[in-house]
Amino acid sequence: MLTLDKVYHAAFVLKEAIRATDMIPARNLKSGVDLFLKTENLQVTGSFKVRGAYYKISQLSDEEKKRGVIACSAGNHAQGVALAATHNGIKSLICLPDVAPISKVEATKRLGAEICLVKGVYDDAYNRALELKDKYGYTFIHPFDDDDAIAGQGTIGLEILDQLPDVDAVVVPIGGGGLISGVAFAIKQLRPKCKVYGVQACGAPSMLKSVRDRKIECLDSVSTIADGIAVKEPGVHTFDYCSKYVDEIVSVTDDEISAAILALIEQHKLVAEGAGAVSVAAVMFDKLPVNGKKVCCLLSGGNIDVNILSRVIERGLLMSGRSALITVELLDKPGQLRDVSSTIAKQGGNVVSVHYERANEGSDINGCFLRIQIETRNHEHIAKIRKALADEGFKLV
Amino acid sequence: MLTLDKVYHAAFVLKEAIRATDMIPARNLKSGVDLFLKTENLQVTGSFKVRGAYYKISQLSDEEKKRGVIACSAGNHAQGVALAATHNGIKSLICLPDVAPISKVEATKRLGAEICLVKGVYDDAYNRALELKDKYGYTFIHPFDDDDAIAGQGTIGLEILDQLPDVDAVVVPIGGGGLISGVAFAIKQLRPKCKVYGVQACGAPSMLKSVRDRKIECLDSVSTIADGIAVKEPGVHTFDYCSKYVDEIVSVTDDEISAAILALIEQHKLVAEGAGAVSVAAVMFDKLPVNGKKVCCLLSGGNIDVNILSRVIERGLLMSGRSALITVELLDKPGQLRDVSSTIAKQGGNVVSVHYERANEGSDINGCFLRIQIETRNHEHIAKIRKALADEGFKLV
Repeated sequence: MLTLDKVYHAAFVLKEAIRATDMIPARNLKSGVDLFLKTENLQVTGSFKVRGAYYKISQLSDEEKKRGVIACSAGNHAQGVALAATHNGIKSLICLPDVAPISKVEATKRLGAEICLVKGVYDDAYNRALELKDKYGYTFIHPFDDDDAIAGQGTIGLEILDQLPDVDAVVVPIGGGGLISGVAFAIKQLRPKCKVYGVQACGAPSMLKSVRDRKIECLDSVSTIADGIAVKEPGVHTFDYCSKYVDEIVSVTDDEISAAILALIEQHKLVAEGAGAVSVAAVMFDKLPVNGKKVCCLLSGGNIDVNILSRVIERGLLMSGRSALITVELLDKPGQLRDVSSTIAKQGGNVVSVHYERANEGSDINGCFLRIQIETRNHEHIAKIRKALADEGFKLV
Repeated sequence: MLTLDKVYHAAFVLKEAIRATDMIPARNLKSGVDLFLKTENLQVTGSFKVRGAYYKISQLSDEEKKRGVIACSAGNHAQGVALAATHNGIKSLICLPDVAPISKVEATKRLGAEICLVKGVYDDAYNRALELKDKYGYTFIHPFDDDDAIAGQGTIGLEILDQLPDVDAVVVPIGGGGLISGVAFAIKQLRPKCKVYGVQACGAPSMLKSVRDRKIECLDSVSTIADGIAVKEPGVHTFDYCSKYVDEIVSVTDDEISAAILALIEQHKLVAEGAGAVSVAAVMFDKLPVNGKKVCCLLSGGNIDVNILSRVIERGLLMSGRSALITVELLDKPGQLRDVSSTIAKQGGNVVSVHYERANEGSDINGCFLRIQIETRNHEHIAKIRKALADEGFKLV
């Protein structure tokens, strides 16, 4: 059973392995909101997950510890379990689907876990983990639906109230619901008038639907950039806690999440993963009634694949006018490329790539296309460059 | 004159406007070194500069405050001065060259400064600032060569000793030398056996050369990705302090700086600008005798242009094998693109762009080239893909 006592006990136990992460003011992210960021992306292992895993493992019996633990995860839970087990001197085995990114596998190994790569997808790895648990007597560490783990996550609620005693609202990402269950429980016990809001990805709204329909719903499929919260079905316990303690659940799109990731990088020098940035996205895009309030957004983690980060940044640059793709239709005669480049250069645009191709069926037989990527200052700058090209007689597509 | 008293006084004054930034353990960045990061990239305005500017401005006479302040900077100093002046209720005017990135101009404006865009480069803006200072009686706020500013930066030294009392060595970026002068002074007064190391960019080693030659050297030109420390000539005061209090100065290349930026993003979810990451680069690439020591690297700032960040990430992905460019020479006949794509897909490579061009002078008249960018897992994965293509009979260039 979850009690405030247990959350305080978890906080005491966790001191030996985790950091009380910083609370950073972030008033520029959204005007009219007195915004703060609880930076669990700067937690050991790059995510809050280590709190729950550590407390859960610390509470096992000596006999259970001797046999070791098993978990199934390709992400933050795996690293949390690995660190917690190693720190407690016990064996951990992590089952992952064999398509998991090498970087996550390596990070988990480095923390001392044994890795079991399973052919297939998450469900295959999960079934394999249950088999191995039965065969060898390992304790299975559930990623979210466990009262000890939830108590561990609840320690973040205590820290928030310690760092920001007069907070009006806390905004928390929801995947399976373990994080928000712990945080909401702790906060509602100590400061009942503080609102607790949950945020899911539009592509994986399992808890949102379940709470709305007052029964646990299982989604057929999930799809979102926020892979850390792409969960098909809430837990039994977490569904109960969310129904009871969470004031409202909203969802955000992948584009909104991307914009939040970019804003956190540019304005606060913080790298958040998709799941970690949904709380900020919800405030930035007016999903919650927090105008004029003192609000804490929980950045739950920062373990984003760098390839995805690179794409998010590129998309953000295009959307904010700091990068532009311009296609010019040219007559196929000498000097055209020179004229286009010199016009762009005169306007202060920095060409980073050029793609040249022959005409397509809709154009003049002598025509060809020049597709140019340019670093620009803003949307006005792009408009100036386009106008200059048009003034020189070039046809823009 | 710089005194420990003054540094303590600055620390007291700064409490009203700046944050005591977090000290984060970072042992994975370099094996064998007990490494910590002092995160001034998470400081208000994204850089330490606000400390010196704020203390300097707080110490002006009422008469000077009434007239206002002027500074010349396109970067962190500008934002520090703007915030400090606005917070003290006085006017600030910032001269910038008109080629300065719009994003920095906007950030400075947002902090309440008036902006004077000057045609030309930094030196033109600097001369204009001196003219305006004489004409209107503004106080000129020097970016580094000023004892009050240096005392402000020195407060970081106090915080480091508070957060990490048994630190063996502190590693600090050097541009003009204001930051390291303050930090080294404070640390050597309180804990003389702690080493203080300075790091410059290879492309702008002005303080390194000056201290080595025991006289102030002025470089003809500077060129580095770390624009925040691209300074041609040390200050008179900072040269003296560095000569007296800094144990050793080393330099790092742009590639080493890029690798440090990427490592900080991936492993610690922190965005550092080039100047901010040189301290970490120096430790990662063995420039300093810190093996087995407890070391604090100062991350001085995080204001990196997102276009540059995007390039640094792309370069890092290529260097670490998580992105690959493969060029295949094809016969110009149907089905070749399909065969290449299916071979790559079978190996788990994710194609992100394809560039197709006709043969060049060195190849068969029917030939053409396919230039493919692929997301990959690591160098072994790339080798596997290349081998699979070769096994299918494709000629790789």
